Amino acid sequence: MNLDGDVWRRVSMGEGMTPIVSYNGNVFLKMDFMMPTLSFKDRGAATLVSHMKAIGVKKCVQDSSGNAGVAVAAYCARSGIACEIYVPEGTSPNKIAMIEGFGAKAVVVPGTRDHCAEVCRSKVKEEGAYYANHVYNPYFYEGTKAYIYETFEQLKRIPRHIFIELGNGTLFIGAVLALEHLMRSGVIDEFPQLIAVQSENCAPFYETEEQGSSSLVEVTPKPTLAEGIAIGKPARADEVLDMIRRHNVKVITAPEDRILPCREEMSKRGFYVEHTTAAALAAYYRYCEKFGPTEDALLSLCGAGLKSEH
Amino acid sequence: MNLDGDVWRRVSMGEGMTPIVSYNGNVFLKMDFMMPTLSFKDRGAATLVSHMKAIGVKKCVQDSSGNAGVAVAAYCARSGIACEIYVPEGTSPNKIAMIEGFGAKAVVVPGTRDHCAEVCRSKVKEEGAYYANHVYNPYFYEGTKAYIYETFEQLKRIPRHIFIELGNGTLFIGAVLALEHLMRSGVIDEFPQLIAVQSENCAPFYETEEQGSSSLVEVTPKPTLAEGIAIGKPARADEVLDMIRRHNVKVITAPEDRILPCREEMSKRGFYVEHTTAAALAAYYRYCEKFGPTEDALLSLCGAGLKSEH
Ligand SMILES: Cc1ncc(COP(=O)(O)O)c(C=O)c1O
Ligand SMILES: Cc1ncc(COP(=O)(O)O)c(C=O)c1O
Repeated sequence: MNLDGDVWRRVSMGEGMTPIVSYNGNVFLKMDFMMPTLSFKDRGAATLVSHMKAIGVKKCVQDSSGNAGVAVAAYCARSGIACEIYVPEGTSPNKIAMIEGFGAKAVVVPGTRDHCAEVCRSKVKEEGAYYANHVYNPYFYEGTKAYIYETFEQLKRIPRHIFIELGNGTLFIGAVLALEHLMRSGVIDEFPQLIAVQSENCAPFYETEEQGSSSLVEVTPKPTLAEGIAIGKPARADEVLDMIRRHNVKVITAPEDRILPCREEMSKRGFYVEHTTAAALAAYYRYCEKFGPTEDALLSLCGAGLKSEH
Repeated sequence: MNLDGDVWRRVSMGEGMTPIVSYNGNVFLKMDFMMPTLSFKDRGAATLVSHMKAIGVKKCVQDSSGNAGVAVAAYCARSGIACEIYVPEGTSPNKIAMIEGFGAKAVVVPGTRDHCAEVCRSKVKEEGAYYANHVYNPYFYEGTKAYIYETFEQLKRIPRHIFIELGNGTLFIGAVLALEHLMRSGVIDEFPQLIAVQSENCAPFYETEEQGSSSLVEVTPKPTLAEGIAIGKPARADEVLDMIRRHNVKVITAPEDRILPCREEMSKRGFYVEHTTAAALAAYYRYCEKFGPTEDALLSLCGAGLKSEH
């Protein structure tokens, strides 16, 4: 077992500190696809795999809608840890190509993302494999917290409105934990308005809020271009719901028919992003329609456009 | 005409300051695909398009083997400048998809990269269009110089061996200019060993050095996976040759049959790069075979792997 504090240096591939640029006036984009594997998941994969390396894990399994699997496969490759990634059918071929490129085994599971997770978890139980899952494993959130720390470091403040795509909540939970940390430390004295973005075709947290239910209203995902957030039964639903209520987070859905036009709008302005990321802009516009012009907002560009090509 | 010094702020998409990580001991990689359009060309596109915006250019033409066209198209999109990109047949469909995504017109020209440049230049002459070409236009090099400045800032020194892929020389010329600047300013007192990487199937500078010719030995490119550096008649050949001789630059060729194995080696270690980039590692290994173990080396990861998928 190697617990020396230097392990992460050999695991890191330089993820993080992604730039923040203006999209339109004071609507800002955090360029979170400028990452070793082209999505924000590298933040969490770097911390999780550093931990795995430190405790001597030799092989692991993981399930993912794509980007997290790509990220974990890459950092495992860098660290000499064998891994097997379970992805649901319909995952972008480019993501599967990357997973296999990293030398991991990609197992395509017929059915939904949720079913894919179940298959993977039964594998964990049967074989006792290390479960390097981004939702389940707390070390992943240690990485996604940096999204907020960096934002503060770069802007010297936290924007008033922060839009975060919410499927399982790996970025959402990390962001909330970091903001709570900044509040507790007296670094900021106001909690920003968080806006959680779900797909119109798979919106369990939105449904739950609409119905005022105390526990999650699970949904069966309908097909959506926003494959990255198509999670009908999020594993940390209670924790996320708690956070939503603790901080008056608004949940908004991205209209399916506006994802492609938003993707086109962004690329016509120089930002080539994947479908799930375009959903964030679609949700931003819907938010503005509902609540009025929304200034000083931060959107995350979670994934690169080529990831959802073909 | 708007010459205020702030133009670049609205043009920039956060390019540059890409991390440097260890590949193997003190063989380092600069992660230059962690860029807005996933290649190092964003460095030059940002400075060139800032200049174009400052002097009021409304439309431009450009020819490219792919990555530079993608970059210029993106920054033009960001800046509201219309553009037309000429690419040779055989350019990766993903690069063309990106160019068109940015709203630029992509014109695929049958024949070689060199012929494509001629077609574009005749368009410049006939129609008087602004020639936003990365090789021709000096403002592009102002951006690629930052490759070296950053390296110094990050490592507090310059590595002893710097491997740079050399097609037209946009990164090479920028790097030499910046290193000369650091020497002149007394920031460094030794010029590093530069190693220019060409494709075995298209190596005019290598041929020129072998033959000891005083002017460039032009070649007709044979097909190569290293599409980014397949330039048989580089436009700034004399300038590059001068630099090669002034600084005892070594020119090395990447063996064609080792490009894919090197790409696989890199992805099995977590780095998913495009073919042209894998050529740099192939050339590094050939260099070690010729000149012995080469420590303290910096290689550039110029382009993301998904760019040469399909
Ligand atoms: C591009 C993109 N955005 C957002 C998310 C949302 O992450 P999470 O499901 O952890 O909330 C994902 C997850 O895979 C993603 O791939
Ligand atoms: C991935 C990649 N590497 C290296 C180069 C070399 O650049 P240059 O032809 O300007 O020397 C290119 C040029 O397009 C490229 O796309």
